Amino acid sequence: MTTNDIASLMDHTRLGDRRALAKVISVLENINTSAGDRDYIIDKLFAKDTNARFIGISGTPGVGKSTLIQAYGKFLVEKGRKVAVLAVDPSSPVGGGSILGDKTRMAEIAVHENVFVRPSPSMGFLGGLTAQTYLTQLLCAYAGYEHILVETVGVGQSEVEAAEIVDLFIVLCLPNSGDELQGIKKGILEIADIVAINKADGELLSAAERAKMELENAFQITRSMGVKEKDFITLSAAKNKGIDKLHETIESRYHARAGDLKSKRLNQKKAWFRKELESRLMKILRQKKSYQKFMQTPIADVSKTQTIQSFVDQYAKKLINSDS
Amino acid sequence: MTTNDIASLMDHTRLGDRRALAKVISVLENINTSAGDRDYIIDKLFAKDTNARFIGISGTPGVGKSTLIQAYGKFLVEKGRKVAVLAVDPSSPVGGGSILGDKTRMAEIAVHENVFVRPSPSMGFLGGLTAQTYLTQLLCAYAGYEHILVETVGVGQSEVEAAEIVDLFIVLCLPNSGDELQGIKKGILEIADIVAINKADGELLSAAERAKMELENAFQITRSMGVKEKDFITLSAAKNKGIDKLHETIESRYHARAGDLKSKRLNQKKAWFRKELESRLMKILRQKKSYQKFMQTPIADVSKTQTIQSFVDQYAKKLINSDS
Repeated sequence: MTTNDIASLMDHTRLGDRRALAKVISVLENINTSAGDRDYIIDKLFAKDTNARFIGISGTPGVGKSTLIQAYGKFLVEKGRKVAVLAVDPSSPVGGGSILGDKTRMAEIAVHENVFVRPSPSMGFLGGLTAQTYLTQLLCAYAGYEHILVETVGVGQSEVEAAEIVDLFIVLCLPNSGDELQGIKKGILEIADIVAINKADGELLSAAERAKMELENAFQITRSMGVKEKDFITLSAAKNKGIDKLHETIESRYHARAGDLKSKRLNQKKAWFRKELESRLMKILRQKKSYQKFMQTPIADVSKTQTIQSFVDQYAKKLINSDS
Repeated sequence: MTTNDIASLMDHTRLGDRRALAKVISVLENINTSAGDRDYIIDKLFAKDTNARFIGISGTPGVGKSTLIQAYGKFLVEKGRKVAVLAVDPSSPVGGGSILGDKTRMAEIAVHENVFVRPSPSMGFLGGLTAQTYLTQLLCAYAGYEHILVETVGVGQSEVEAAEIVDLFIVLCLPNSGDELQGIKKGILEIADIVAINKADGELLSAAERAKMELENAFQITRSMGVKEKDFITLSAAKNKGIDKLHETIESRYHARAGDLKSKRLNQKKAWFRKELESRLMKILRQKKSYQKFMQTPIADVSKTQTIQSFVDQYAKKLINSDS
């Protein structure tokens, strides 16, 4: 793709052309994209700050994330806002594509002209996925989307990384309680900014309120340990209840913490850039013949004559000019 | 720690001393462990092949993994086997430790002299966790444990990595069905060797049998797409039903595919070694002053004068002696 094509695509993206936006995302996702094209896009994305909201929505499968995104997306669109939904699917390791089909489940809002929906293939590399989603977020903002909702699935490290690239991290859970809070992991609870208990309607209403109280109490115990401030709310995504309260909670966070947000975004930018530099350098290293030879030495050959570390040291010495 | 200490610890480990085994695992988990100590341990672990079984057990929270491991562990111990349980917890990003407390839930079998239970802290780095668990597995085999059960939690990339270090990957799920198979992700289903539907007793018995049939049918559709062979079984971990069938299924896999297993283990070893080499080299690189300076350049400074890629190229040239 010539730089002219990219420039034109970026112009169309900035003017709100959804097809151009989708194409630029594909260009960034494509590992064969030239460094020049990437640089051009990245330069545009980092040229000025954005007021868009980057909201992460997490929770284990079946907790109602898609329903919530659908409900909140609709709420925002009815207020005249432009909404982008990035679904970070756990990808099929065999097929390589997005299997859950959030795009289909998003059908109701996806057809609206002010809505852009994009499921992300994971490409089998988690760190890369988060870095990629970070750029996709910025691109959506560049295209004029004001609320970028990033749906993540799973527990553990992927969630921690996802939480780092968004402004606010919402964790959705079910109105259960007890020793093992079904549908929520404590590690995830800790990184949440907003904890939303779903299905707070009908016969589960009182259970949801009770779960909210229990979580608030648990939070009081852990807050002295340096756990970050969080809000607890109940809602019913399916019944469209509590969506206004969710919006209020999100917006008040933005208004109360504009300074925090600015420094958080600066840190995100720095962290992304460091990752980008290291991965580009690794790409160059991995292409060197001597590097390939180094990596393909069988462990038996190494341990027969020397320790693994002296083997690595020797290669490192060969690789690196003597800078102190 | 002197090499003598490590040598003595490894001797005690080989003789089945559980405390020595626990200490060696800690030595490997400690990022401050010297390269010499690591090399000594790794050399011992790779010196000869093992007949131990490395079994991964996966499934979303609440599906009954711990109960199954408890039941299967008990079954094996009653046959006179030595069993190790490695619980790969999603770690708390704030507290840094294992929160789920599988060790506590494993209480019933953990006290048996032929059982070793070890929850793994994630140390905030997923790739590292899998590589670490791979060595811990080998260590347990070195200590004479014959069945190493590796419990993993979550969906997505972490599961794919976990599946790569074990011989067989069991996915546990609930007897639900419908569009969204609760408690199971298709990507995970694809990498499973054995799919076990839990809670197949009482009023859920027929639902479990139906779910098994549905999954078998779904598998028939996808097998032409290169999905690997798998067995489907129903069981009830809580009621101790179907555990013998699970064992039979596992054992017949081992007997039918001894050749596959050998090449799989060789590939695991190679993959681990490549990861180890690269991470050690990165450690050396990251300590270089010029590398730190390179990584800390602000993106604004770079894009003012040149593209990101030419900046990386320049540094790479400086870093690498001209080998073609």
